[in-house]
Amino acid sequence: MRTIDWIDGRVRIIDQTALPGELTVLELARVEELIDAITSLAVRGAPALGVAGAMGVALIARDPRYPTPDTVRTAAVALQNARPTAVNLSWGVKQALLVADQGADAILAAALEVRDREILNSTQMGERGADLVAELKQGRLNVMTICNTGALATVERGTALSLVRSLFERDLLGEVIALETRPLLQGARLTAWELSELGIPHRLTIDSAGPALISRGAVDLVVIGADRIADNGDTANKVGSYSLALAAQRAGIPFIVVAPESTVDAATASGDDIEIEDRGSAEVVSLRGVAIAPAGTRAVNPAFDVTPHDLITAIVTESRVIRPNLP
Amino acid sequence: MRTIDWIDGRVRIIDQTALPGELTVLELARVEELIDAITSLAVRGAPALGVAGAMGVALIARDPRYPTPDTVRTAAVALQNARPTAVNLSWGVKQALLVADQGADAILAAALEVRDREILNSTQMGERGADLVAELKQGRLNVMTICNTGALATVERGTALSLVRSLFERDLLGEVIALETRPLLQGARLTAWELSELGIPHRLTIDSAGPALISRGAVDLVVIGADRIADNGDTANKVGSYSLALAAQRAGIPFIVVAPESTVDAATASGDDIEIEDRGSAEVVSLRGVAIAPAGTRAVNPAFDVTPHDLITAIVTESRVIRPNLP
Repeated sequence: MRTIDWIDGRVRIIDQTALPGELTVLELARVEELIDAITSLAVRGAPALGVAGAMGVALIARDPRYPTPDTVRTAAVALQNARPTAVNLSWGVKQALLVADQGADAILAAALEVRDREILNSTQMGERGADLVAELKQGRLNVMTICNTGALATVERGTALSLVRSLFERDLLGEVIALETRPLLQGARLTAWELSELGIPHRLTIDSAGPALISRGAVDLVVIGADRIADNGDTANKVGSYSLALAAQRAGIPFIVVAPESTVDAATASGDDIEIEDRGSAEVVSLRGVAIAPAGTRAVNPAFDVTPHDLITAIVTESRVIRPNLP
Repeated sequence: MRTIDWIDGRVRIIDQTALPGELTVLELARVEELIDAITSLAVRGAPALGVAGAMGVALIARDPRYPTPDTVRTAAVALQNARPTAVNLSWGVKQALLVADQGADAILAAALEVRDREILNSTQMGERGADLVAELKQGRLNVMTICNTGALATVERGTALSLVRSLFERDLLGEVIALETRPLLQGARLTAWELSELGIPHRLTIDSAGPALISRGAVDLVVIGADRIADNGDTANKVGSYSLALAAQRAGIPFIVVAPESTVDAATASGDDIEIEDRGSAEVVSLRGVAIAPAGTRAVNPAFDVTPHDLITAIVTESRVIRPNLP
């Protein structure tokens, strides 16, 4: 099942707020329902949000309340603002609006094209990544990863997890060790669920055990996604990635980044130019509503960290392999 | 207030299972109550358990149910078995039993001597450590630490946290960044509480942010405790310590281990000879009774990791400074 799809005139999504407890599918007939789903993080992940934006415009265009291209454009503003900082959402809305004057069918076709391009990108990243890994390492491999980079963040297959899936399909995978990914536990909640659904052997571990397990030879490579890749290859990703890169270098195992070309930001010279967002104390000092620290405790909560390019074996996109560490 | 003490014929402890929610003091008049407190982890930490063992024998010796040295020795077996793998508990019991034939007063004196020696050790580790740090670094310093190595693990002051406290008393401390220390959150629950009680400026962070914050210059040094130190200086400590050592080396900041001489194990040649206990899946896949991963998810859960001696700037004990990285 796809994370987000268009079925019989509705947007169908997997409700990620219900995972891993239950698999709930939402069928959204009106744009307001889709906006609610985006706001509540029922759908998340940059590529998936791009598709949501485009499909949301398709919902608007089929709605009798918005009979003209101008009313469609106006209604799309609220959709675009459902998560103002998500650039992919806004990008998806714009892709669909490019053909706003051609009517509802053309808009739907554009939205489906956004979806299909995402699926193709995921497949290509995974296959190219698996080709590279098969070059670097022989036999069945154990792989460590962090956060959720699977179908739930895209439409199908994912980025780093698409590589894992390609290895699995080629019978080149031993097991995945997935980091739980504090504070929001995307690894424990979402990645463990996806791997279980796919029948891929896996175990979970706490984030700080990642480097220790690498040092003891528990995995043969590390594969992560990316939030942003600077021009020199320095890579911003979920906090914890840097510690895995340090350990991988010391252990002499590959550290591979898998991300779409849209993540490569030529305008950012290096990781030093990437500002680290702090998400505030609340996520750290309580967990699912339960306080885990004394009342009033302040926390540092960087959303991501930057792995310098010299620690990265390769960056794999849908169209190329970048080896930032080679001259 | 001391974590464990002898007051008016009773053992008084801070109930660590109630922290950080509330500060509950237990006064234990009978050895059965102390055994319950040890079993439930109301009292924990190797040095504190040593004192508990010795004071438990003092409780037995004053109890009319145990009128002879032989009955005292027999009753002490159950105390010693309250946590069979805690070598310090057993050691404390034995220290008190050495004078079993001399009667209850002599046993109590021996128990108080164990307590006083622990307090002295903590003070000496902290002061010697602060002397070393003042040599290595100028000005007010920000310090990162993991797990709980404070008074709650000892009687007063602690090991690594004793160093922090000595820096604070000398007005050489900026702030402490304490790692939450998954899976059992000793940093979030206990260290944050202790620092708050002492009025020491601190912030909490998730474990995987430690290396990232070190790379961004957030701290000037890392200070940790130790479970076991091999003959070559390789140090086993709470999982996550290794990742901090890797990051400290890359950032060029000191990485200091503070632990009593009893932790130095000359019979273990190197970290390769230290077996890593896996504590099972349950601690990882649920948190305070709330499931955080799909039902049935298996986890890797190493209790500690090993930091190779080449990443360690110095090991500070109550009697010396070891620099394993110097020839």
